[in-house]
Amino acid sequence: MTVQFRDNMSPGDWWVHPTGPKNLITDVPGVKVGHTTLNQGTTARTGVTAILPHGGDLFDRPVHAASAVLNGFGKSIGLVQLDELGEIETPIVLTNTFAVGDCGKALIKRAIRQNPAIGRKTATVNPLVLECNDGVVNDIQAFHVTEEMVDHAIDQADENFEQGTVGAGTGMKTFGFTGGIGSASRLVTVDGSSRYHLGALVLSNFGQKSELRVLGKKYAAFNPAMPDAQDKGSIIIVLATDAPLDSRQLGRISKRAGAALGRMGSFWGHQSGDIAIAFSTQNSHSRTGTMQYDATRLAENSMNVFFHATVEAVEEAVLNAMWFGRASAGYTGKTLPEFQAFLTRAS
Amino acid sequence: MTVQFRDNMSPGDWWVHPTGPKNLITDVPGVKVGHTTLNQGTTARTGVTAILPHGGDLFDRPVHAASAVLNGFGKSIGLVQLDELGEIETPIVLTNTFAVGDCGKALIKRAIRQNPAIGRKTATVNPLVLECNDGVVNDIQAFHVTEEMVDHAIDQADENFEQGTVGAGTGMKTFGFTGGIGSASRLVTVDGSSRYHLGALVLSNFGQKSELRVLGKKYAAFNPAMPDAQDKGSIIIVLATDAPLDSRQLGRISKRAGAALGRMGSFWGHQSGDIAIAFSTQNSHSRTGTMQYDATRLAENSMNVFFHATVEAVEEAVLNAMWFGRASAGYTGKTLPEFQAFLTRAS
Amino acid sequence: MTVQFRDNMSPGDWWVHPTGPKNLITDVPGVKVGHTTLNQGTTARTGVTAILPHGGDLFDRPVHAASAVLNGFGKSIGLVQLDELGEIETPIVLTNTFAVGDCGKALIKRAIRQNPAIGRKTATVNPLVLECNDGVVNDIQAFHVTEEMVDHAIDQADENFEQGTVGAGTGMKTFGFTGGIGSASRLVTVDGSSRYHLGALVLSNFGQKSELRVLGKKYAAFNPAMPDAQDKGSIIIVLATDAPLDSRQLGRISKRAGAALGRMGSFWGHQSGDIAIAFSTQNSHSRTGTMQYDATRLAENSMNVFFHATVEAVEEAVLNAMWFGRASAGYTGKTLPEFQAFLTRAS
Amino acid sequence: MTVQFRDNMSPGDWWVHPTGPKNLITDVPGVKVGHTTLNQGTTARTGVTAILPHGGDLFDRPVHAASAVLNGFGKSIGLVQLDELGEIETPIVLTNTFAVGDCGKALIKRAIRQNPAIGRKTATVNPLVLECNDGVVNDIQAFHVTEEMVDHAIDQADENFEQGTVGAGTGMKTFGFTGGIGSASRLVTVDGSSRYHLGALVLSNFGQKSELRVLGKKYAAFNPAMPDAQDKGSIIIVLATDAPLDSRQLGRISKRAGAALGRMGSFWGHQSGDIAIAFSTQNSHSRTGTMQYDATRLAENSMNVFFHATVEAVEEAVLNAMWFGRASAGYTGKTLPEFQAFLTRAS
Repeated sequence: MTVQFRDNMSPGDWWVHPTGPKNLITDVPGVKVGHTTLNQGTTARTGVTAILPHGGDLFDRPVHAASAVLNGFGKSIGLVQLDELGEIETPIVLTNTFAVGDCGKALIKRAIRQNPAIGRKTATVNPLVLECNDGVVNDIQAFHVTEEMVDHAIDQADENFEQGTVGAGTGMKTFGFTGGIGSASRLVTVDGSSRYHLGALVLSNFGQKSELRVLGKKYAAFNPAMPDAQDKGSIIIVLATDAPLDSRQLGRISKRAGAALGRMGSFWGHQSGDIAIAFSTQNSHSRTGTMQYDATRLAENSMNVFFHATVEAVEEAVLNAMWFGRASAGYTGKTLPEFQAFLTRAS
Repeated sequence: MTVQFRDNMSPGDWWVHPTGPKNLITDVPGVKVGHTTLNQGTTARTGVTAILPHGGDLFDRPVHAASAVLNGFGKSIGLVQLDELGEIETPIVLTNTFAVGDCGKALIKRAIRQNPAIGRKTATVNPLVLECNDGVVNDIQAFHVTEEMVDHAIDQADENFEQGTVGAGTGMKTFGFTGGIGSASRLVTVDGSSRYHLGALVLSNFGQKSELRVLGKKYAAFNPAMPDAQDKGSIIIVLATDAPLDSRQLGRISKRAGAALGRMGSFWGHQSGDIAIAFSTQNSHSRTGTMQYDATRLAENSMNVFFHATVEAVEEAVLNAMWFGRASAGYTGKTLPEFQAFLTRAS
Repeated sequence: MTVQFRDNMSPGDWWVHPTGPKNLITDVPGVKVGHTTLNQGTTARTGVTAILPHGGDLFDRPVHAASAVLNGFGKSIGLVQLDELGEIETPIVLTNTFAVGDCGKALIKRAIRQNPAIGRKTATVNPLVLECNDGVVNDIQAFHVTEEMVDHAIDQADENFEQGTVGAGTGMKTFGFTGGIGSASRLVTVDGSSRYHLGALVLSNFGQKSELRVLGKKYAAFNPAMPDAQDKGSIIIVLATDAPLDSRQLGRISKRAGAALGRMGSFWGHQSGDIAIAFSTQNSHSRTGTMQYDATRLAENSMNVFFHATVEAVEEAVLNAMWFGRASAGYTGKTLPEFQAFLTRAS
Repeated sequence: MTVQFRDNMSPGDWWVHPTGPKNLITDVPGVKVGHTTLNQGTTARTGVTAILPHGGDLFDRPVHAASAVLNGFGKSIGLVQLDELGEIETPIVLTNTFAVGDCGKALIKRAIRQNPAIGRKTATVNPLVLECNDGVVNDIQAFHVTEEMVDHAIDQADENFEQGTVGAGTGMKTFGFTGGIGSASRLVTVDGSSRYHLGALVLSNFGQKSELRVLGKKYAAFNPAMPDAQDKGSIIIVLATDAPLDSRQLGRISKRAGAALGRMGSFWGHQSGDIAIAFSTQNSHSRTGTMQYDATRLAENSMNVFFHATVEAVEEAVLNAMWFGRASAGYTGKTLPEFQAFLTRAS
């Protein structure tokens, strides 16, 4: 099994909730993740990551969902309708800032292939694409990402997937280190009896190096003259659960991603598009089904442990994104440092 | 001068605030509007409409702005950052639902041409594209809209522009009638002395025919079996003013578009993406200017008359969108009726 | 049976959905309404109105709920927690602006009497009090409303209740006419088979007389010099349903109250605190029950007819509030005119 | 000078921005704070704290402001109108949960004494009262707080004020330790030249002891069976600045309080009403002044350093609240431990 951050760095009692078997978002049954990585030539350090809430037709059976905009310096598409209807009806696609339009178009075309009536006899479809700016090492003006890369990422989605400088995270930078995709999960026990999974996946591109706290330890001193003085990345946080939460409850969970970022030293920087979304795989219902249907609900008093688990999973997901980062020279010649090497030197 | 709805339909004292000279959004000094209309062959009934808050470099000198999502069944891009920063930094582009990605990409490329540092040395740019679904007469699955159409609409923007079945409104339907682009304006007097302009432009594609109220008169009886029984269009409302409003105040104005729709018989239908944005041409400041700058503010007690003027301008803009609608056969052979002909028959 | 607005004014096909048996919010099974009216001496024209979502212990079995702030120039208490938890856990109390604190205190004490552990062993309770300013005819500085008046209104709540200048509506003014409490209801058929009730109750104190539209007809001309030139009242709209809507869906319904106000000529005036809340009597669950419980949900595609019904019920509730208004001299000697008399003269 | 947390605990480079001269919210020129402490008998451990944005008539000259609801399990009054108008027009009063109504009434009466036309000739006034539940050591059901205590707190407000178990913080508990009122400040340099003050004051009653991080160090291990397992307190954060921020910008700052809580180990617990407000002392304008007035604005690109300073000031304010906490037996005999003693033992 892959060695994750926690396997090497001895978090001790920093986190208290048990992880799922893989410590990945795909510990939530049915969830799959796929990447298309573009790391070639001298300018292309970018890609696409797709998260599938379930393996079926998402347009027919959307999942309940919500979002939280921690800081809205971001260019996602799909959040307006997600917030109104509390639903996600396509795979969730992560990519770079200038690729949002092409990825959205790819999702529309894919949905039409599955449901040819879309936009003709039924409503249109709401593609969901979120982004960070990988312009430090990728030449974002080159528009490297294609529609085909979206289909590829979805087609090869699986319960197992790589982390670090891969997929949409290929060109991303976290607290000054290379690495963009990370994941973690928690088991959540409610009422002593019911056990649920909660998973997090981040596209991480945020953080000011001198503010980084790793398990509470601050390594670097602040130097206003340093080039890292501005936190102008972004982070997208995707949360999944098999607890039967409704969209309002999922919205409460989404917001907690912000506490996790705070714990690591982020102050949700001005130019950082920090956006979280959360979905539940439960209570999904066919668009053409009955108007009234049976469902399950979770009482509000059970939410506290989900909040705690969310903060833990998001913090660990970011640390994994950094942990798995591998250096590669950017289009301007700049090479981002690796976190593992830094931790070794610092300890 | 073009004969508008009010010239023929004698609104009497239905509206009380005087219009600007053209009764168009372009009565606000500096604002321009341009269309690219695609009405050809048997399937293409669509287009692009661009609104320019000012004629300069919007990325360098964004305008203060805000949005109001009345009903979020819509697929716009750009609202997340607009809400966070209270700014618009590209032309506002209106189009059909599936063309949002391409139009956003066109805006990004255009901004890069003006500011080559975007995404490389500076932050990325936030394109603003809003949409309605013209799938009743246009084959939206054909992806007719191109990036070039966006540039063309912006390049030929002017103080004078056409209304009705033109630009993004070419394939739109309002309360069952053909016609999508409409505009109107009001002069707003504050404190007896200061006079401001407030203009509205709509991309109108909403409304259930049997609920239509024209100046308070309801023409059609409700028939649950009729195909118009669902209000599943959408409407985009763009408001402009030269009053020195800040983004919170512009947000308050944006929301009032909803009262105008209510007056006409809309109940903000479930599938109708009803979204308003408002901007002020005042207090614009260069991105590279000083950190603190002088500005003017409008006291909150002066807002009431702006709310009243907004409701009037939006209602009249929708009526103009319908008034100027011209019939053309859609891709399925369906031809939408003209409002003018209906009014003549009904009176 | 009491003669309502519709019985005299022949709305024809202005509204299309059938009313419930009483055309009151209490057509929703289990809902009750009670008033305490204070109309005595020369300065007291005020009171309290209580709406009970069900007859049991609301702290133990809260109802799912949501709110919509159309214009936030208002001084309610309880909305922050209502929005977070999507629940109402006390009766809903309406009163005048300066009585909010005393009414909230009365609700806390009442909840403690039912649940002595509140604030000691359990969480505290969230009282819900909404208000309008009856300062035109009531001397609001006299603080006439007492805690006892809240208990009295709750204790005598019933399926039948009076409208007009009664309870919290005693001193209220709507479009220049006397009258504050009004109600109406609709039957909503979904999918041809399921039939639900939707009821509205308003505490109405809003509107600029010259802008009033009654069934689309505008009676008065605008005169900027008139004392009614400012819409600075407020309106509280309470919506109830027995459809199994969750809080997000109830939030969508709440917003539609704004379309109803627009239809009548309101532009949601600057100084008007226009706030709607909605609750469902279904899926209520004991605070001490199991963490996961069975529930029913309504598919999102069924929402459209609820939106339509909401606009109709709210508009008719306001007209009933005016219809039942009876003149009484205010504390400054000013007597507000009656709507019925005005309609008779105008027709 | 009083010895604060930082004087004893050597934060090193944990924080990087310099403090103001007193390291209190009153480092912002014009801001004053006053307490009324009720610590007597066996049941009364509560009080009132008032923050005055300026020493003049706040109803006539409101200050620009905004709020952020991190978790809405709270019973404040005044936020609806604060959010709509972006203004604070009374002193800010902090107290216990059940005293909100009485404190609001006291603020209304005080405003009327200064402005006898309120509610008669002008609009009503919007009192602003925020709360935490001190029910662990105070018998909240006894309703100890009186209207007079509000006037007293305002009357003796000063640039110097006590912290810890004082005023509204008398009965509060933070991460299991006694202590409720804390403060801190930062100097913010923008553009190398302009220097502003940013101050924080907290009414702190939140946090799960086993999750506490002090400057990144976690002292206690998690024990699910411990009585501290639930974070069900609350925290109110008040931020002040003399930078000329508008309400949208102040809203962005308010949200950053959440990152500070996250840094300390909070996950914004389910039952914790975590609410922040921020105001600027600049650009205040008389209600009866001209409709258009000159003002200054801060460019958006300068916001980043304010975010950083906010997180630092809020974190330090909470630590000061704990640092100054003094033990006193509660009404049930329970005595909360002191943080200083704990730190001494733990080190």
